Amino acid sequence: MRAIVPLDSTNRFGVGETAEPDVAYGDLLVSVRATALNRADLLQKRGLYPPPPGASPILGLEMAGVVEEGAGPWKPGDRVMALLPGGGYAERARIPSGMAMRIPDTLSFEEAAAIPEVFLTAYLNLFQLGGLRDGQTALVHAGASGVGTAAIQLAREAGVRTLVTAGSQAKREACLALGADAAFDYRAGPFAPEVQRATGGRGVNVILDFVGASYWEQNLDSLAVDGKLIIVGTMGGTQVPGLDLGRLLARRLQVLGTALRSQPPEKKVSLTAAFADFALPRFASGRLKPIVDSVWDWADVEQAHAHMEANRNIGKIVLRVQ
Amino acid sequence: MRAIVPLDSTNRFGVGETAEPDVAYGDLLVSVRATALNRADLLQKRGLYPPPPGASPILGLEMAGVVEEGAGPWKPGDRVMALLPGGGYAERARIPSGMAMRIPDTLSFEEAAAIPEVFLTAYLNLFQLGGLRDGQTALVHAGASGVGTAAIQLAREAGVRTLVTAGSQAKREACLALGADAAFDYRAGPFAPEVQRATGGRGVNVILDFVGASYWEQNLDSLAVDGKLIIVGTMGGTQVPGLDLGRLLARRLQVLGTALRSQPPEKKVSLTAAFADFALPRFASGRLKPIVDSVWDWADVEQAHAHMEANRNIGKIVLRVQ
Repeated sequence: MRAIVPLDSTNRFGVGETAEPDVAYGDLLVSVRATALNRADLLQKRGLYPPPPGASPILGLEMAGVVEEGAGPWKPGDRVMALLPGGGYAERARIPSGMAMRIPDTLSFEEAAAIPEVFLTAYLNLFQLGGLRDGQTALVHAGASGVGTAAIQLAREAGVRTLVTAGSQAKREACLALGADAAFDYRAGPFAPEVQRATGGRGVNVILDFVGASYWEQNLDSLAVDGKLIIVGTMGGTQVPGLDLGRLLARRLQVLGTALRSQPPEKKVSLTAAFADFALPRFASGRLKPIVDSVWDWADVEQAHAHMEANRNIGKIVLRVQ
Repeated sequence: MRAIVPLDSTNRFGVGETAEPDVAYGDLLVSVRATALNRADLLQKRGLYPPPPGASPILGLEMAGVVEEGAGPWKPGDRVMALLPGGGYAERARIPSGMAMRIPDTLSFEEAAAIPEVFLTAYLNLFQLGGLRDGQTALVHAGASGVGTAAIQLAREAGVRTLVTAGSQAKREACLALGADAAFDYRAGPFAPEVQRATGGRGVNVILDFVGASYWEQNLDSLAVDGKLIIVGTMGGTQVPGLDLGRLLARRLQVLGTALRSQPPEKKVSLTAAFADFALPRFASGRLKPIVDSVWDWADVEQAHAHMEANRNIGKIVLRVQ
């Protein structure tokens, strides 16, 4: 089959031939129509984020397509979307049947491909790890990112207020339009005082953080008593110069390192089921929307990756698989 | 009424006169027969751990006694034990009726006074925060301490394996007799390799830590994937020189600062109810035992405190209130 593969020794990627997906990757064979980019793809290209043992070596952590070989409740012709441990940048993918979600009729394949990774990540962190409830408040960094735009919408549907940070006026306006209560320009100054002002000095219950070390102090300053700092990425570095455990004890703070990709398959299946219950009816009714920044032909994968590296996207960057 | 109060400006404490407990402290009036020591008492004496707003300024975070004025389900003459925000070192204490637990007939007041603080702390951290389940493993530092001996027993009753650290042969033997699977001498060398050996290289699901900074690196090395480091004390310092967030992300580790005393009253009431359901029948049948190191006349409070400072106790140090 065709897939996105390294074209030469300079590590440039494009459409090429590769082996069909191994049956070991899953019991459902899907003809992929669209996949979407994740930052992990950029790391994996550089050899910095190897696929977990047993996963496809092909890039691509999610896809939308049509069932070719059914299993479980799925029949050939069903439109499905799913999280993948790898292998989305390909004509065909195999997945465990419990990982598939039915695509609402109102959504295209390109829209559906923009859902799994960011919405499941946001759902896992806001609700299953963060335990957020109606009336609480979350701070979502990189609010206009894929996970950020998913988190704002899911929080809104659960009655959770969101405060976000974003680096451009257009991004902040996009966040507010999705339901964020306030959007802070992290380039204009420290966000922690803004968070305190917006919460009447109480701080937020959960922070969804992709930045890490450079936000560490401000994040701790922004948490309410019993607050949880959930770290899903470290784009601002991994090395925190010092940690005062007294701060964690005084306000009973929690720091959680997490990742969706490395979760065991049974956890991904149960997460998918819980998320599908909560979210699929809301996608069908239009209350939740996949946020698609742009759609690219998969032959233009290098330009699409450059667009993500430049950090200009609002929402997901999608590849159409031809 | 009489209570333990500062006797002079040198901060020596002994029995003296003080005002009756204010109705603001609770709706149940209890004649205190025994109270027990906590490290917080030593800090509070030195002005380092002030009572929370609205709490009695008198020392004492737990007590056992007889109801004098009933409320809710409680009648005069009922034998009760309870966690307190303060005021246990006194002839009488007022508590919200939801904080009281019925003392099993098989236990003396001295034994009952040894239960609330350590068993509720262990229950909160092992199960409500740690989420430990049958078949999992916990590492309990200071295994022979009050919280340690409570944690070993509660874990055993829930089918959770415990590994402990303790600084003397007598303490390690006491831990093993209570049901610990292995006891390590932290003076003999690093405990992290021992934990790895005892868990087949998987690490533990939860660490209950009272030590803090000086154990930080070894604690992280001892955690399994998705493991939780629950920090309830920092006897080994609060300042961790550096934190690599990549370590937290790679194995999805969680670091939780926690404290029982500062929890809101409604949380203490719900914790007390859950604990009472799980534990009171087991205390009545003798499966769970309050571990009493020694019982002192409350007039000897300074000697009892010195015994705790010297770190020689196995289990709780109890004061008999005359």
